Amino acid sequence: MSQEIPYKIYLDEKDIPASWYNMRADMKNKPAPLLNPGTGRPMTAQELSGVFCEELVKQELNETDAYIEIPGDIRDFYKMYRPSPLVRAYCLEKKLDTPAKIYYKFEGNNTSGSHKLNSAIAQAYYAKQQGLKGVTTETGAGQWGTALSMACAYFDLDCKVFMVKVSYEQKPFRREVMRTYGASVTPSPSETTEVGRKILAAHPGTTGSLGCAISEAVEVATHNEGYRYVLGSVLNQVLLHQSVIGLEAKAAFDKIGVKPDMIIGCAGGGSNLGGLIAPFMGEKLRGEADYRIIAVEPASCPSFTRGTYAYDFCDTGMICPLAKMYTLGSDFIPAPNHAGGLRFHGMSSTLSQLYHDGYMEATTARQTDVFEAAEYFARVEGILPAPESSHAIRVAIDEAKKCKETGEEKTILFGLTGTGYFDLVAYEKYNNGEMDDYIPTDEELAASIAKLPKIN
Amino acid sequence: MSQEIPYKIYLDEKDIPASWYNMRADMKNKPAPLLNPGTGRPMTAQELSGVFCEELVKQELNETDAYIEIPGDIRDFYKMYRPSPLVRAYCLEKKLDTPAKIYYKFEGNNTSGSHKLNSAIAQAYYAKQQGLKGVTTETGAGQWGTALSMACAYFDLDCKVFMVKVSYEQKPFRREVMRTYGASVTPSPSETTEVGRKILAAHPGTTGSLGCAISEAVEVATHNEGYRYVLGSVLNQVLLHQSVIGLEAKAAFDKIGVKPDMIIGCAGGGSNLGGLIAPFMGEKLRGEADYRIIAVEPASCPSFTRGTYAYDFCDTGMICPLAKMYTLGSDFIPAPNHAGGLRFHGMSSTLSQLYHDGYMEATTARQTDVFEAAEYFARVEGILPAPESSHAIRVAIDEAKKCKETGEEKTILFGLTGTGYFDLVAYEKYNNGEMDDYIPTDEELAASIAKLPKIN
Repeated sequence: MSQEIPYKIYLDEKDIPASWYNMRADMKNKPAPLLNPGTGRPMTAQELSGVFCEELVKQELNETDAYIEIPGDIRDFYKMYRPSPLVRAYCLEKKLDTPAKIYYKFEGNNTSGSHKLNSAIAQAYYAKQQGLKGVTTETGAGQWGTALSMACAYFDLDCKVFMVKVSYEQKPFRREVMRTYGASVTPSPSETTEVGRKILAAHPGTTGSLGCAISEAVEVATHNEGYRYVLGSVLNQVLLHQSVIGLEAKAAFDKIGVKPDMIIGCAGGGSNLGGLIAPFMGEKLRGEADYRIIAVEPASCPSFTRGTYAYDFCDTGMICPLAKMYTLGSDFIPAPNHAGGLRFHGMSSTLSQLYHDGYMEATTARQTDVFEAAEYFARVEGILPAPESSHAIRVAIDEAKKCKETGEEKTILFGLTGTGYFDLVAYEKYNNGEMDDYIPTDEELAASIAKLPKIN
Repeated sequence: MSQEIPYKIYLDEKDIPASWYNMRADMKNKPAPLLNPGTGRPMTAQELSGVFCEELVKQELNETDAYIEIPGDIRDFYKMYRPSPLVRAYCLEKKLDTPAKIYYKFEGNNTSGSHKLNSAIAQAYYAKQQGLKGVTTETGAGQWGTALSMACAYFDLDCKVFMVKVSYEQKPFRREVMRTYGASVTPSPSETTEVGRKILAAHPGTTGSLGCAISEAVEVATHNEGYRYVLGSVLNQVLLHQSVIGLEAKAAFDKIGVKPDMIIGCAGGGSNLGGLIAPFMGEKLRGEADYRIIAVEPASCPSFTRGTYAYDFCDTGMICPLAKMYTLGSDFIPAPNHAGGLRFHGMSSTLSQLYHDGYMEATTARQTDVFEAAEYFARVEGILPAPESSHAIRVAIDEAKKCKETGEEKTILFGLTGTGYFDLVAYEKYNNGEMDDYIPTDEELAASIAKLPKIN
């Protein structure tokens, strides 16, 4: 093989984007505002700044500025692992014998193992700028907690992570990475918070949930001088920071003179998908170009494809603001599948609005099909993908196979959000033929959606 | 910070070396030949080709060609993860407040997590070219086994890995990566080989050793039609393939007009060190330039610094050819430290000769000092290093601190051979303050060296 386009298209470091792109500025229908669950009225900046850093609150509420400058300190940190490569999947194309041109933007080349670091470093930076002592957060699968630990180590900030107890016990290596970066990691629910003690009293022996861990992290942030709470997905600010993925991908495509026909991303809370598609969606919103944009969610947690577009709580503790989004209900407990990063009952408000307005499609993938694609990809392209990312791989492979049938030379871009080094329990299950597929019944979904807050 | 030299110096893909560099061609004193343990005479190509692939035997014995062309298929594979970045450690320099300029060549950006893939893909290629069905090997820490599994998956070759039983049980994730790449992984000693059954009968309940795993892998290769044995370190052919590391590093330095003063690499069997220093050592051998070259070994397994330069067996089973090298005796059992890749009793014959002739220095590092450096580096530079690589980090940091004292602006290059994602048991011990330092006594070393074969 000796193609003109290299295997890996790298931008120069000086071409790391100088600004993040804010999709909301180009949306005719803005995403619905966060509501105060007590009053039912939009959350004010003042209300939000008790929980979040001030600058991040501004970003959360900013619907007008299309570009927001990336501070120099954050760009310097980005230089340690960015620009990330846009990879032409020559080997995959050859193996599939497809006329499609397949590209992926690889975000796994950093120790946190995923794209989460792009927003973690930004949130840590603004916390430091505000003179805070530290931040609190929750983590499930552990990608976000790891990324935040790294970011806090860099800015010498204290980092308190509440890790869902079952993950804390089953993923001791994830925990140790965070400890190596100096974070304190507490299994949740814990005796260290009021809400934790309450839950433990009511449910002795519980192995925890993301919703409970969020509640503990928020309590610690709001009860301790000099602390704020940070979150790795769902929020507008997170999508803003993650736009660096799409901006780099687009610049790399421009460099080689290629325009993708379709863009495929996995979707949990929306941090990766929203970042990957941002500048492409911008062109689409402004009527400058068209792209087919596909969100892929696990069949076990199908908020876009089987959820309802309504106001709901982001946490099961129901202490966070209400967000209007595609949701399965904050009471919905997804099956214990192995894509922990996609097991969220709702979806980013911005992406929900875009989906509602017809700017993107959504589809689901079953767990065993996802791992089949993951293993296939690993063997051919040499990267062991995270289960989350493998949802996008599955659909990219299926689309490339369709091109083989039709003879169309479509250009496919998908987001390879991270690596699977900490997901080998899942790979083991797959290798042993012990993996199952769980899909919620209509009755189950109806039951949790019936419990949506009355505000709607 | 806005320096002229970027954080990461990348070569273009077209600048991946077209040839490997063979240090032996420029050595006045060639490394001593491998000897047949039965006859005491140099191994012939014919004798070696019963165990190794034919083309690899040629490379093993080639002392005259300075450059050996890299086949196109191997270069294509290299393009999936190479050129690897030469990184300017700006953040580390700033944290150390040193006038030294620190660079590292990072080989961990591939799923095998280390530089081992550079030779694995070459060895798999030549096996495929020879029309073989598959290859056998042993693995201890698992980096080599993982790399070989990936290479065999790419060329559709069968891959049989004998994994030291204690690692097989303690590192289930390493095992699963190999299985995901389609390799069969057998805990050693096993009931599947004659030598394995013999050892199990003599030592019921043994948890195995690298020496035993080598013996089993060689037995399977020599008793099965269409199979050969491959090895990830020590051999001349491996150093040849690994020269791609040093060649890229040198080309990147040339690109920015910088010349390193000292080059630091960790040393186990010599695969990384020999590859990293190759072109620099070439200039030194030809009298064109001078560099300070430092090998760093674990204090628990100090073959350069406390071993003897003599003929010895490479395996504890004593079935492999004899190699002249710095050795602690094939009977020496290193303490159970956490740098599994450096726990070999001997050292590459080529590097041994160069050390013997005064072309390089060697030093040791204690385990707790190594992990202190590893954690420091992880927090500052954002990469979780492998314990093996962290030996080089330790000495690089110490040298940079000396520069702070003297005010010298030395340029330091060290090899960051891999990532520590599969070494978190070790990090956990360090985080818990439970890590110990074991250094063999003079009596212990004298006892194992006394058992060297009589050929010397």
